[in-house]
Amino acid sequence: MSTLKKPNILITNDDGIDAPGLQVLIKLLKPFGNIIVVAPDKGQSAKSHSITLMDPLRLNKVIEEDDYRAYSCSGTSVDCVKLALNEILDTKPDMLFSGINHGTNSSISIIYSGTMAAALEGSIHGINSIGLSVLDYSSNPDFSLVEKYLPLILKKIAKVNVGSGLCLNINFPKISPVEAKGLKVCRQAKSAWIEEFDKRTDPHHRDYYWLTGEFINMEPDAEDTDDWALKNNYISVVPVNTDFTAFERIEETKNILL
Amino acid sequence: MSTLKKPNILITNDDGIDAPGLQVLIKLLKPFGNIIVVAPDKGQSAKSHSITLMDPLRLNKVIEEDDYRAYSCSGTSVDCVKLALNEILDTKPDMLFSGINHGTNSSISIIYSGTMAAALEGSIHGINSIGLSVLDYSSNPDFSLVEKYLPLILKKIAKVNVGSGLCLNINFPKISPVEAKGLKVCRQAKSAWIEEFDKRTDPHHRDYYWLTGEFINMEPDAEDTDDWALKNNYISVVPVNTDFTAFERIEETKNILL
Repeated sequence: MSTLKKPNILITNDDGIDAPGLQVLIKLLKPFGNIIVVAPDKGQSAKSHSITLMDPLRLNKVIEEDDYRAYSCSGTSVDCVKLALNEILDTKPDMLFSGINHGTNSSISIIYSGTMAAALEGSIHGINSIGLSVLDYSSNPDFSLVEKYLPLILKKIAKVNVGSGLCLNINFPKISPVEAKGLKVCRQAKSAWIEEFDKRTDPHHRDYYWLTGEFINMEPDAEDTDDWALKNNYISVVPVNTDFTAFERIEETKNILL
Repeated sequence: MSTLKKPNILITNDDGIDAPGLQVLIKLLKPFGNIIVVAPDKGQSAKSHSITLMDPLRLNKVIEEDDYRAYSCSGTSVDCVKLALNEILDTKPDMLFSGINHGTNSSISIIYSGTMAAALEGSIHGINSIGLSVLDYSSNPDFSLVEKYLPLILKKIAKVNVGSGLCLNINFPKISPVEAKGLKVCRQAKSAWIEEFDKRTDPHHRDYYWLTGEFINMEPDAEDTDDWALKNNYISVVPVNTDFTAFERIEETKNILL
């Protein structure tokens, strides 16, 4: 037996098992570990931390090779993580990677994201979990910046204590590797998506609405935020967690209610 | 014109427009404001902060009275809030109430909750937003504790500056009003749902899985947490926000990656 055990790496995403971003992620991580992929069998974008309670879940093994197994699942990205941990893996994986998402998950976008929900779910179970996104919504983005930085990121994450539940939201700007200034550890920018519904009428004279939106950064000049980093050619890294408590408003809330 | 303007109150939920919890909430709030209900046309529980991007949304007016309008929507609770703010209301409501959810949304359950997602969405847009849940999953819970406390909570929230984006996660234990010790302002307890999938085989010999789970409180003795409050006959109130940044891990992350 080798004394250098390869890490067990769980991979998922929310764009579905056929998404180019997932395939690139698998290709990049394969040299470094035992790979287990559990990904949705179709796109599950913007499903946030949804779980499937009212329908049964299906799981299909699609690849079984040495050091590489892949399953598709009928549910969301969070369902994929829960099934991986409870029905597929005998022990917790050493780390989890989610993505590579086609489109930004920086600042407030994290709350809608299935990619980051999967990473957060991993961290709830103590797994060091990394969500990766590129600021490119096309079906075939340029992943060369991720290809340059991911091996470096993986090697550093592999040194973090297994089980420490570190969760990172990493976003890559849409620039070439030569333009990139490197990684920048940030906080989440204060921002919102302001909706602009596209109202239409169907052939049966009934109205319907398409949800569209415009992104508003409420603090564009804050240099310690992820959106500032991305606008200034950095790869943004935000450590995130699942504690929603607004600690800064606890005293105010006591004053209001008690 | 009266100088005492009644507040405009937006109401939604994730259990659907016919849920008893929503109807009780409408009944309790009607005496105090102009009520606009926009709620899902079917149950949308555990859909978290999901939004509908790949399907068009439908909106149907179901009630139009003086000071009381109600709409059903084909989407999630967050879709309901976005449609209310952008397609139904001319001005932002003075406050938003979401619920009354049939089942707990305390501690980590908030991350899966459509009820709290709607409240958080309201707060992203600066609206003072209150999510209400009872620790009773039945289709017809006892709401008498909510009935006792909600008028009091409403009067206090009405004094908070409109637009301050306060968001409260309020959970009511399954006890009678006489047993309740009152409101307790808390932080979110550190906890997790540990899954136990129920694996079955369908008549066509294919496996499927039902998601079930067991709730684990990792700090049951922490008296400043919501789960401790609920176990000790308090109504728990947690001020919450949408900043996922793990500020306490920023230095660690810099040390790991940079």
